This record gives sequence, structure tokens and C-alpha cells, in this order.
Amino acid sequence: MFSLHEKEDTIVALATPQGVGAIAVIRLSGKDAIRICNQVFKGKDLEKQDSHTIHFGTIRDGERIIDEVLVSLFVAPKSFTKENAVEISTHGSSYIVNQVIKLLVRNGARPAKPGEFTQRAFLNGQFDLAQAEAVADLIHADSETSHQAALNQMRGGFSGEISKLRAELIHFASMIELELDFTEEDVEFASRDDLRILVEKLLRVVEQLISSFDLGNVIKNGVPTVIAGKPNAGKSTLLNALLNEEKAIVSEIAGTTRDFIEDEINIGGVIFRFIDTAGLRETTDVIESIGVSRTHEKMKTASLILYLFDLTDTNMEEINQDVEKLENLGVPFVKVANKTDKANDQFINDLNRKYPDTVFISAGQKENLDALKNRILELVNLDKFRTGNTIVTNIRHYDSLVKTRQSLLDVLEGLDNEITNDFLAMDIRRSLHYLGEITGEITTDDLLDNIFSKFCIGK
Amino acid sequence: MFSLHEKEDTIVALATPQGVGAIAVIRLSGKDAIRICNQVFKGKDLEKQDSHTIHFGTIRDGERIIDEVLVSLFVAPKSFTKENAVEISTHGSSYIVNQVIKLLVRNGARPAKPGEFTQRAFLNGQFDLAQAEAVADLIHADSETSHQAALNQMRGGFSGEISKLRAELIHFASMIELELDFTEEDVEFASRDDLRILVEKLLRVVEQLISSFDLGNVIKNGVPTVIAGKPNAGKSTLLNALLNEEKAIVSEIAGTTRDFIEDEINIGGVIFRFIDTAGLRETTDVIESIGVSRTHEKMKTASLILYLFDLTDTNMEEINQDVEKLENLGVPFVKVANKTDKANDQFINDLNRKYPDTVFISAGQKENLDALKNRILELVNLDKFRTGNTIVTNIRHYDSLVKTRQSLLDVLEGLDNEITNDFLAMDIRRSLHYLGEITGEITTDDLLDNIFSKFCIGK
Repeated sequence: MFSLHEKEDTIVALATPQGVGAIAVIRLSGKDAIRICNQVFKGKDLEKQDSHTIHFGTIRDGERIIDEVLVSLFVAPKSFTKENAVEISTHGSSYIVNQVIKLLVRNGARPAKPGEFTQRAFLNGQFDLAQAEAVADLIHADSETSHQAALNQMRGGFSGEISKLRAELIHFASMIELELDFTEEDVEFASRDDLRILVEKLLRVVEQLISSFDLGNVIKNGVPTVIAGKPNAGKSTLLNALLNEEKAIVSEIAGTTRDFIEDEINIGGVIFRFIDTAGLRETTDVIESIGVSRTHEKMKTASLILYLFDLTDTNMEEINQDVEKLENLGVPFVKVANKTDKANDQFINDLNRKYPDTVFISAGQKENLDALKNRILELVNLDKFRTGNTIVTNIRHYDSLVKTRQSLLDVLEGLDNEITNDFLAMDIRRSLHYLGEITGEITTDDLLDNIFSKFCIGK
Repeated sequence: MFSLHEKEDTIVALATPQGVGAIAVIRLSGKDAIRICNQVFKGKDLEKQDSHTIHFGTIRDGERIIDEVLVSLFVAPKSFTKENAVEISTHGSSYIVNQVIKLLVRNGARPAKPGEFTQRAFLNGQFDLAQAEAVADLIHADSETSHQAALNQMRGGFSGEISKLRAELIHFASMIELELDFTEEDVEFASRDDLRILVEKLLRVVEQLISSFDLGNVIKNGVPTVIAGKPNAGKSTLLNALLNEEKAIVSEIAGTTRDFIEDEINIGGVIFRFIDTAGLRETTDVIESIGVSRTHEKMKTASLILYLFDLTDTNMEEINQDVEKLENLGVPFVKVANKTDKANDQFINDLNRKYPDTVFISAGQKENLDALKNRILELVNLDKFRTGNTIVTNIRHYDSLVKTRQSLLDVLEGLDNEITNDFLAMDIRRSLHYLGEITGEITTDDLLDNIFSKFCIGK
């Protein structure tokens, strides 16, 4: 954890990515941020300017000009960190960035540690811990859903829900602790029946949040998906067809590229992560058919299976057997009938009667892929998310919620067994503690260091 | 070349490097820049705010929030491009950047072409062509000298010199063209003697600028350097010793890295580019000794040779022969005697008497490397640069200067041969044309397109 002294330092770091670009932005924050920048800036006197104004001038090391820059001023508390802050927009050369940062360090700033700007924003009450964590999620979000989840969390949606629960519970805790002061008089400020109703209500919400973690995880990390089928069913052709469509969309706008991961496909704003596609990338697809046990294991870890079969090379009996096995597996799956362009019409009709939810495509001809995508999206239940319900995406929050659940169950059990008030109060306090960990109302230095050290420098 | 219509478009691009960082900056420029941004921004009404102010708010696609941002406003003509301009500082996610740029394009902006922001700055008179070109040089500068050369050029040092020459010549040109109107009266407004003096003076300056190009090229691209010597003289050890020292300096400040090129070493602010060091990187150094003809060819292309020999494995006769060959080559070289820690004192004394400019080092023990660096810097004649003289770094400028020289020589020859005024005026006009090309007073559309297309997008 940073010492008090460190908290008063003025910190400096490059805030934009490394590399060549038109501009780079260097960020300073701390009591002396504006004064330190002013020492090396030739232009207006920065200490006499208003917050949220921009000033053109030069950064100088003595008489030597390092660059012509724009300086943006943020006067405390009107900044991201709630401290005095300066953003220096230089030409985008790593040589210049290095020179300017070295110069600022010589003038009294200190290189920032990873996440230190966001940590200061948290420590100075700009937002709570869950919101601070969402900043990092937001930067790394690469699909519409993960982006929306992070943005909602950063804007306080998730924290609001947790705080509401906690406030209600605090009310009861204080009533019960009040009773402790009057133990000899046998008063009951807090109705045990009302407490039970509240705790049960809290439990339902906590359960809901816990169960949202699966969806949250999927949103953040992608839906683990397997394409299963016999060799030559067309698995690699299908994967390529889906990938190529996305690539075409992604490259639409010149000058903006996305990190493009070979085995991830964005469908309707959700990332689908294909498991073990290494084999699929070969000219012949090597993933074994459904019956093989290794494939079986892999399919169990998936959240979605695309069961692909070749209409010209599969009979109804095989399909029946595969479908039965897949149903026993319990993982959502889509029946995908491939090579419609070459198939026997009668067989298609039979199949359609027997399994009306089959999606008929031609991966080679790229026919009916949109229908397949729609079916895939239906299977990933995003309704909860679309309706704006709160989603847990962070494993730390998940852990705290699971502990909260256990504490709340202890409270209920205590009520059942009519345990004494002091034990009841202890169980309630423990629930409050775990809920408080999520938003940072309860923190330890180790926890904070651990969270912020995962940030990048400059954030 | 851009059509008039294109020049009135509002353009948009990411101005910071691709990749993950704390923030990204998206830049808009054009008549409608502020209006377009205002359409998707929820916060204050941007069209009613002052120039050079910063505003917090959200970027929204309808009701969907894409990000919380800071918007910096620059009202024409007080911007880089002299047009209305907006910089949107978003969280540093490529997903968000893509979404925001797409949204702005849907609202009427157009993705910018490479260099289009700087091109507009030039077309709108923010600076001349040589200064615009210096912007790109500045971004790619990776040493103190290349950075200073680019910065001086961007700030108009080079342009100033050219413009001064041109103004003097224009004065004479107009006098002579005036004489053309009075041919029958045989008047002489422009003294031929004065013209000759001016042209000779111009020629000296142009010659100086042309000869500075070698130095300018060295400053911009690094000094091509060869380490020559027998196998096992310690060439790879020396290269590594120099490289490692630099790496240690470079990694001093956390969070700032420089692109580090394996074969480039920064000594005293000058980049030395080692030729064909692929062999040197192996465990045994494979560059042949001085006698081999392939090495000979390589050494001729170098601007500096480090002649390295092993004190324990070389006799005076060999050294005499090598030194003679090197002197015949005409490339500056340093005699570097290696393995002082193991050498015979008597031999060191003899050598020192015979060649007092020998630098004695131990590459393995990293002894006396500073003395070697100082000697290297002495050989690269940077005095002209240090004294603030103008340096030509751009091959396009060099070409124009060479053409200017030829035209000026034609003027002199014309004066010698007492050619008629109209021919004389033509030669002078041609000199003016080539000088004007440098600063962009004379341009063609092809020239402009060619220059700006080499810029990165967003600049």
C-alpha cells in the first residue's frame, strides 16, 4: 500500500498507448501537478488559468525546446482523480514522451505505478471500488455486451444495487445491536419476522446476482463454443465463413482496426470463443465426431455446441443417436444441417418434420448463415442483460457474494434456532462486511494493491 | 488531390496510437466538427462554448451510452488546422474508438486520409510545406539530434533561410523583368555586378545547405557504422557492451519504453546504425577481417569504421597494414585496441607511441567505453549542427536545392556570356521556382498528395 507521503506525490505517466501516432498524452496528477508543469511550460502562466481550459505553448528544458504542446488544466476537485491534474498533448513520438516525462520527474513528479490514477480517484471518493474495477474492464471490452456491462458497472448500476441491500441490512443490524444495550429489559426493536423477510429477500437478490455470474463471465470472456461433427461435415468451412463475414465488417472503416483473435467471432455483440479450433484451421477438420470420448469432455466444458452434419453423408439413424447423446450432455446445442446445395430434398423434408428446429445451411455457399447466427443468439440467454438487470462479471465480486450468501443463510439458521442477539448481530455484521468489500466500503491495503496493480500505467 | 468538396468535409480519425492505453483521442476537423460532435454528445451545448475549453459528458448512440468522455473544443481559426476542431478523449479501448468513429461518420463526418489534418493546416496557411513535413519527421525522431533538426524545421528555421534567399532573388528578378518593358531604351535597373554578387552569395548558401544533407541524413537515419577486425577480435562483445549500456539507460523510467532496434546505438544523442551486424549477434563474430573484399565494399558504404583488434593476438605489422588500407579507403575510422586487461604492457606502450590516437578498451570488462564513445562523437562532425546552422534532412529539399544550384549556375553563365534579359529572367525564375518548391510557395497537386500520403492517419 502507498504511504501517506506517496499519496501526496505528484505522479506522471503516458496515458495513451505506446507507439507512433499523431499525438501522445502525458498525464500529471497531484497537489503540485499544475505548478510542476508550469515550471517547464512557456506560454501563459498556468497557475493563473481556469480549470478545463487548454493552452498552447512549448515544453522547455532550460533553453532547449522539447516540443510544442497543448496543456489541458483540471483544477482540484474537478478532475478524474479529484486532485490538480494536467494533460500534456505532445507530438506522438516516444522520444519526446520520454524527454518530457524525464523533465517532469526532474522537476518533482514521480512516475506513476500501474492503476495509480484510478486508485487516487477511488481514495478521493470519485467512485467506489466496483466502479474503479469497471474502468479496467471498459478499456479491455471488445464486444457490445462486455462494453455495456463494464459501462453500467462504471456508472454505478451494480454498486447501487449492492448499496441498497447493504443499507437495508444496516438498519436491522443497528436495531439488533441496540437491543444488546438493553438485554436485561427484553425489548425487541427489530421484529424477528421482519428480519427474516428482509434476509430472505436479500438472499433472493444475492442468489440472482450469483447466478448472473455465468452470464457475466460469458459477456466478459466470450461464450465457449464447440463445433462438433464427423470429419468432413464442413466444420472448418463453417468457422471460416463466420470469421470472414466478421472480418469484412471490421475492416469497413479505414484507420480503425480491432485486435482480431482468430478463434473469436462477434455475433450480435456477443463474443463466441471456439474451443480447440487449432484442428479446424487445417485443411481437413480433425475434431472427432460426437462419439469419441475426448470430444465428449471438450463439449462438456462448452456453453454452446454447434452440432454440424453433412446432409449428403449422414442418415437419420446417426442423427438420432447424436441428438440423444447431446441431450444427455445438458449443454445447449444447435442442429446444423450442412450442404443444402447438394442435398436430397426428401431427406431435408424428413429431417425438418422430425427436428423442426434444425438450421439448414450451406457453409461453402455461405447460405443461411444469418439464420444460424440468430439461433445461436437465442440460445445464449441475454434477456436478463438486455432488460438492464445487473450482471456480475468480476470474480472478486462473485466470491464476496457467495460469502454474503453463506452469512445470510447463517442468519436465517440463527433465527430458526433462536440464537442469542449477539450471535445474530455477528452473522449480520459478517454479511455487511462481505457486501462492503464489493464496493470498497470495507477494504484492506492488500486488496487494493492487488486490484490496482492489474491496471496499466497511466490509468 | 482532394476536390473542393472534399476540402469542406469534416474529417475524423484516431489521433493516438492503436492499442490498449488509459485514454484514446479522436480528432475531428472541419466546418461542422463542433456541430457533428454536439449531435452525439450529452452534456453542455458545445456550440455555445468558448474555444480552448474542455467539457465532460457522454457520447450516445440514441439512448445507448458509448462512453463517458472529455471533449476539447477549438473554434476556427484557433486550431491546428485553422478549422473548427474537436478532440474527444475516450477510455482507451479499440472497441469504443471504433464505435465513436462509426457514430460520427453516421452523423456526417468522413474518415480522414493519411496526413489530411496536416495537409489542411498547410492549405489554410498554418505553416509552409517544409514545416508540415517536419511534423512527420518530429513524430519519427528517435534521438536528440534528429528531434532537434525536426523541431527547428517545424518552427520555421529552415523555411526562414530559404525565404530570405528567395526574397532577395525576387527583388532582382522584378528589376530585370522591369527592364524587359523598356528594352528599347537600354536602361539597367538591376546592376549586373550586384546581381552577380547576389547569385554568388546565394550559391554559397545553397552549396552549404546541400553539403549539410550528408549530416542531415546522418542525423535523421543514423550514422552507418562498421565494426571491422579479425575473427575473435571481440566485435560482438563490443557491440553488446555498447547496446547493454544504452538499454540500462533507456529502461530507467518505468512506463516509458523506446522502440529499441537491436543494431542501433544512441551515443550522445546521435544514432549509430551498425551495418550487417547479423553476423555479430552470433556467438562468434563472422565479419571478415579488413583484407577481405566483401568487407571492403561494406566499409566503403559506412560513414564510420571501428577498427577493432585484439592486443593479445595482433602484431604491429598487421596493424600497420590495416591502418594503411583504412586510410586509403577515406572513411573516418577509430583504432580500437581490445583486451587491455590481458595485454602485454610493452606492446601497449609501443602502440601508443606509434598511434597516439588509439583507444584502449576491454570490451569484456566494459573498461574505457566512455573514451571510445567520445572519440566516435568527435569523428561525426556535429559542430555545424550544434552551432544552430540549418541542416537539410529531407531528400525532396535536397533535390530542389540541387536544381536551384544548377539554375543559379546558369544565371552566372548567362551573365558571363551577356545573354539577353529575357533568358536571364527565365533562369532566375527557374531558381525561384525550385526554392519555392521547398516551402510550398510553388506546389503541384501531385507533389502535395505524395507528401501527405506518407503521414499516418490522424495527423
